[in-house]
This record gives sequence, C-alpha cells and structure tokens, in this order.
Amino acid sequence: MSGTIWSVDEHLEDILAAVKPLEPIELHLPDAQGCVLVDDVVVQVALPPFDNSSMDGYAVRISDVEGASEEFPAVLTVIGDVAAGDGGLPDGRSVGPGEAARIMTGAPLPAGAEAVVPVEWTDGGTGAGPAESMRAHSDAPEGASGEVRVHRPVKPRAHVRAKGSDVKPGDLALRAGSVVGPPQIGLLAAIGRSTVRVRPRPRVVVLSTGSELAQPGEELTGGRIYDSNSFALTAAARDAGAIAYRVPAVADDAETLRATIEDQLIRADIVVTTGGVSVGAYDVVKEALSSVGDEDAAGGGVDFRKLAMQPGKPQGFGSIGPEHTPLLALPGNPVSSYVSFELFVRPAILTLMGLEDVHRPSVRATLDTDAALSSPPGKRQFLRGTYDAEAGTVTPVGGPGSHLIAALAQADALIVLPEDVTSAEPGTEAEVILLR
Amino acid sequence: MSGTIWSVDEHLEDILAAVKPLEPIELHLPDAQGCVLVDDVVVQVALPPFDNSSMDGYAVRISDVEGASEEFPAVLTVIGDVAAGDGGLPDGRSVGPGEAARIMTGAPLPAGAEAVVPVEWTDGGTGAGPAESMRAHSDAPEGASGEVRVHRPVKPRAHVRAKGSDVKPGDLALRAGSVVGPPQIGLLAAIGRSTVRVRPRPRVVVLSTGSELAQPGEELTGGRIYDSNSFALTAAARDAGAIAYRVPAVADDAETLRATIEDQLIRADIVVTTGGVSVGAYDVVKEALSSVGDEDAAGGGVDFRKLAMQPGKPQGFGSIGPEHTPLLALPGNPVSSYVSFELFVRPAILTLMGLEDVHRPSVRATLDTDAALSSPPGKRQFLRGTYDAEAGTVTPVGGPGSHLIAALAQADALIVLPEDVTSAEPGTEAEVILLR
Repeated sequence: MSGTIWSVDEHLEDILAAVKPLEPIELHLPDAQGCVLVDDVVVQVALPPFDNSSMDGYAVRISDVEGASEEFPAVLTVIGDVAAGDGGLPDGRSVGPGEAARIMTGAPLPAGAEAVVPVEWTDGGTGAGPAESMRAHSDAPEGASGEVRVHRPVKPRAHVRAKGSDVKPGDLALRAGSVVGPPQIGLLAAIGRSTVRVRPRPRVVVLSTGSELAQPGEELTGGRIYDSNSFALTAAARDAGAIAYRVPAVADDAETLRATIEDQLIRADIVVTTGGVSVGAYDVVKEALSSVGDEDAAGGGVDFRKLAMQPGKPQGFGSIGPEHTPLLALPGNPVSSYVSFELFVRPAILTLMGLEDVHRPSVRATLDTDAALSSPPGKRQFLRGTYDAEAGTVTPVGGPGSHLIAALAQADALIVLPEDVTSAEPGTEAEVILLR
Repeated sequence: MSGTIWSVDEHLEDILAAVKPLEPIELHLPDAQGCVLVDDVVVQVALPPFDNSSMDGYAVRISDVEGASEEFPAVLTVIGDVAAGDGGLPDGRSVGPGEAARIMTGAPLPAGAEAVVPVEWTDGGTGAGPAESMRAHSDAPEGASGEVRVHRPVKPRAHVRAKGSDVKPGDLALRAGSVVGPPQIGLLAAIGRSTVRVRPRPRVVVLSTGSELAQPGEELTGGRIYDSNSFALTAAARDAGAIAYRVPAVADDAETLRATIEDQLIRADIVVTTGGVSVGAYDVVKEALSSVGDEDAAGGGVDFRKLAMQPGKPQGFGSIGPEHTPLLALPGNPVSSYVSFELFVRPAILTLMGLEDVHRPSVRATLDTDAALSSPPGKRQFLRGTYDAEAGTVTPVGGPGSHLIAALAQADALIVLPEDVTSAEPGTEAEVILLR
C-alpha cells in the first residue's frame, strides 16, 4: 500500500473496467427470471395465431342478423360448438346462410362466419329472454344444436381478434439487454419460447475474516464479537440478483485464509472478503492474497488502496487464481463493509449479469437535520439516512461511526457529502443514494 | 353468477378480509431474507460488547503522551500486542506508566490504557519516521515488543469505541412487522441471533386451464395457443416474495381439473387459476370448484362474480378443501390475468406474508398521448403504460385489447381510468400504479 489516495470514482472505474459480463447460457424460462437477455428475441409465430373470438357467443354471417332486435330476433340454426382448442367446427363444416356456430372466447372463427354476437345479445338457445351466460355443455349438450334468437345486429369482424394483431412473425419481441421479468416471461411463453439465452446469475462467495468473529448463536467470550458481515453481504448479493455463498469467519491466519479462498474458487464468479485490509499487524488478507490460486499462471493479483472516502478507506481489488476471478477485499467494520458493498460490489455483480445501468438510483434531497453535518476535508462521506419521497427530504440516522449497524438497519438511503464539503447545513440539498 | 356487478374495491376488500397472515416459523437468518418479523427483537448483548479500538495503533495512558511531537516524541515500552479476538494483553497484563500496547482495530482496550494513538502518529516501533502501517506480525514479530515513538498527544478515550455505544441490552433492535432485508440480517447477526421468528414465504400454486393451451416448445396445431399465464404468474408470484409452483395447462374437463387442484392443495397456501371463469359452455373452473377437497368438511366454496373493470371482468374468489385454502380464479386472457394478479393476487400474497402495506405505489402523472383515451362508462379501466418519473408523465403502450401481451412486456405502469371517466384528454392527470 503506497501513500497514494484514490478517489471513489477511480476505484469504481478500475473495478468496472476489469469485470466482464458472464458468458451466456440457454435457460428454461423459470430459471431465466431476473436475468438479462443476450440476443434480440424475434417472433416466429403470429399472435393470435388465427382469427378468434373475444367473447362467448355465436359466430354468424352479417347479413343474417341485419336489423335484428329483441322484438324481431334473427332466428338461426345452431350447427355446432367451436370451443377453445378446437381447429374449427366438427367435420370441417362452415357457417352457411341462416346458420350460427356457438363459439367460446379464444376459439377460432369458423369458416363462413364474419363476426361474433355475444351470448348476452341472444336467448342462448333457450327460447326465453336474453341469456346471461351459456348453458354448460356438460349440463345441456343440446345447446350445441337447435335454434338461437339473436337480438342485435353486429358489424363485420365484431368481437373477432385478428390473427397477428398482437405480434407478427419477424416482429421484435424483446431487445437484447432486457431484464426477463414476469411479463417478459409471459411474452416469451406466448410466442412459444421454452428457453432463452441469458447471462447467468453470478455466483458470489462472501467470506468474513477475523479471529475475533464468533458465529451468531455461539457464546461470546472475551474480545469476540459476532460475525455479521458474512450474513449481511450474502443477503445483499442475493438481493442484487446473485447466487450467494456464505463462508463463515476465517481466523486471521494467512495460510488458512489462502487455502479457504482457493477451495472456494471452484464456485465463485466473484469473491468478496471483509476485514484484514487495514494497516494492522494481523491484517492477513493482504498477505494471503498475493499468491492465491495457481502460482504458475498469471493470476492478476490484488491491489490494496486507501480511498478518499468515509467509511471504507481501506479497499482491495484484483483478480485471483487461474481463472482470474475478480476479488474485492472490503474493510471489516460492518457499516464500512456494507457501504463498500453498495458502492463497489453491487455494480460489479450487475456488470457480471450484463446490466447496463449498474447504479442505484440517486436523487437530490433537502437535509432534514437539527445541526450541520460535518465531513472530513478531501473525503467523500456516506452517511446513513431515511429518505422521504413526498417531502423530498432526507434525515440522517445514527452517527458517522462505522460500527453503528443498528442505525444502518433503519436507513433506506446514503447521504453523500462530497470531498470539498466539510459542513452541510440543515435545509441545504445533498445527493442521496436510494437503497430500496 | 348473478347479474350483480361488483366494484374492484369491493372484490379486493372481500379477498383481504378472508386472507390471513401465515402462522410464524423460526428460521435461520439466511432463510428469513425478505420475510416479515413477528416479534419485536430486543438486544441481549451490548454492541460493541467491550471498549475497543477504532484504529490500528497503540493503547496508551494520556499523561505519557502529553505534549508529544515528531521532534520530541514520547518514547514508550511496547509490552505486547492486543489483536482482534484477544481478551486483552497476554497474561492479563495492564498498561502501566511509560508503557504502550500495540492494538488492532476491534481489539479490546487493555486495562490501564486510556486512549489509542493511530499507528500513523507513531514510528511504528521502527525507530525511523512516521509509519504508514504496522509491520505484519508474521514478518516482524519484534513489533510486539521494543519501543515506540509517539508523535502526537491524544485526548482521553480517543479512537476508543465505547461498550454499548451502538446498542445496549434491552434496546429495541427491530420492530415486529419489519421486513428482514440485508442490513436487518446484519444487525440480527451482530447481536448474536442465529434464528428469527417470521412469517414464512407463502406457497402459491399457479394453474392455467384451457384445452387450447400448448406448452412452449411444442408444435402449435389448429386452434391452439401457447400457455403463457402459468409462466407469467408463477414469475410474478415469486417476484412478490412467494415460493411459486407452476402447474402446466389443465384441459377443460371438470373432473381432471378438480383432481389436479385436490392434488396440489398439499403444497398450497393459496391457489391461483387462470381461464374458465367466463360465460361460455366450457368454462369448467366454476363447475369444478364447487366441490373441491373434502366434501364433508365445510370448505368455503368459490364465488364467481362480474367486476366493473376492464380488463378482468370475470373473477372468482373463495376457499377450497379441508384447510380452507384461498383460491383466486382469474380470467384467461394474458393481460386480464396479469392485471388481475397485480390487483388481487399480489395483495393477497403480501397479506399472507404479514406485510401491512400490500399495495404497489401509485402516483399522479400527466397523460402523454396524442389522442384522448376512451374508457367504458361504469368500469374502472387499467391501461398499460410507461412512466417517466423525471417528467411526471405516463404514455400508454399498446391498445386496450386484453390479448396485447407484447405491449404488456414494454409497460412498467398501469394507468387507471375510474368508473366515471369515459374519456381522458392528453395533458390531464391520471392515477398510475407503478409495477416496478
């Protein structure tokens, strides 16, 4: 670690320049949820694939129902049912003059018919007044024959959804780069796609280091604290869309740490460590990471830096092992590691996923605070806050201390105080990164 | 189905009155992600659990470093290291006059010491100029002994994080009703909780019906279309936080449908069907759902209604089987079923999860459209649109047809045209439900 101080932007730029989207994979639709499309998806079939009825009713010829009214209904002979899923009328029949076919929503318009009369505009074949619905086929099979009285005329193509009126072959269904969410999955299924080429979810290994770390549920003995980083960052990685593996705290021993990371590389698209990156005598992450993986292959190596930010000054980034797996070494304080995750790891994960916009939304908001917020000169400070969208205000929670994890759990935003700001007065505006 | 028309609000109210939050379960932290806390979580340990150093440096007595400068350093005898995880100095020693302990970030302040001097304010025990960092213990074990020159005085308690300064025993860590996200998981781990009592993720069975439905990847034969609802709604249920099971299309046969639903009840906290709820002769969902489950037990039954909405007029809701499992029967058109899911199923899922606010955020936005939007009188219409937060505008995509699933995949909002609106002019304001 040299005396150079790096800016937040320089560090992030270096990370994003080194991390590349994962190689694409063909996945079944349910597995592709949340992933990014690699190719434009072009429609191969027309939707709907055939002219079909948008109502339950009767398929008729226009001239047969001209001038029809409840008093003077058009009386038509029902020649059969066309249900959804049928290819048309039984025996390939068509609707001739004076005839009607009973038709269900989504069923193909039979040959000869020019429009659909909704069942509510007819007597439903009962010979009584206007029908509210069709008689169920299972109760009254005779509904598929006999006579129907039509009470109103219809225009050509009325209640008919034309073939290709939704999409046509050759249409662009979804652009490369689209995120496959529920409606996109619906569209892909509707056009017959059972699989789609996407970038897979990145596999993130989160590993906390520190001899002081006990696992939650264990008894705390002198000098120890509970490991929270591995839990919080695994959850945050999952929240970002990754498959996350948590490796419980590794003690401050370079050999153990190196062996553990080497073991994990097999299932890692990116490795995140916490702790051991500062200037102490037992900060073994730096020591361990100089020779992880295959020492004969160029493994990149990890660079440790001081950043002009608070919290989160000490940071490591590089790649390790024969596959040049990216590794981010975050500081160990819970708030420092969480803020570092938001600023550096999350964008790296979203980049691996193939997303274009890898940043949390940020807004300008008015500082709602009793006293001025102070910030060290030359450092970008990230304070935890709660954002009120209605009022356009942000209120700091907890203090600047990087151990205030209780306050972090109340926050939904980071308040950014730039390098040249040493004091931010109540009522002034600040940049706010929205965490939810 | 009677002639009564129900409003959207009445239908939703009936659903939310009948659906109850699931019984709580004790889950390990990683499994509780996204779930809702059942109890207030009270802190049992102090955080930090002991006075500890916020820097890598030297634990000293104040009077020993009074007036120290680089020119006239205070020279102290290093009596040992206190690393993170240690209970204190070796052999229970304390820091006496003229002595210092080398201390690491997070390590307990040893007895006798009153403050910490950062290593950068000392020579790091090298006898040379100001140190940038400590020598690694593995390289230079002598750093834990010898002398250190301190270049600056410190105030009492400087660089010491006091026991309990984050949280104290008895403090409220998280309120009942909080959603367990990454920072909350971090806090729970930090206070030693390995498990937490939450409401489990609801298990949602999504089942599409219709003899016309082919599975994506299959060849389409006459009159058939691809099943998209089961894919889209399973994904949407998962997106809402549920564990979702997709049951591929069931043909329009009441006996098969009844048997399939009975089979599924074992893994369902809620059942969602699509299709078969309208007025056609083959709408078997209604027929089948009158006697699902144990016929001798009161199973509730399912009520089928016409709602004053477009799309989505025909809807069914009730409970089935011996456990009174809630069931929502949605219409079969892809856009109708998706809009119905958003309006009725998603709030039901969030209610099962124990959330208080079960609604998507909605905003007022200006209609950015060339021509007026028309809406049927007496019906609440939901049009698909894209919302521009910057401009505060919403632009309709696709038409009002409920089969326009391609447009749905481009939308990120629903434009709501109320019952009393028949025409909405460009430039006027409308309510917009944000889908992302």
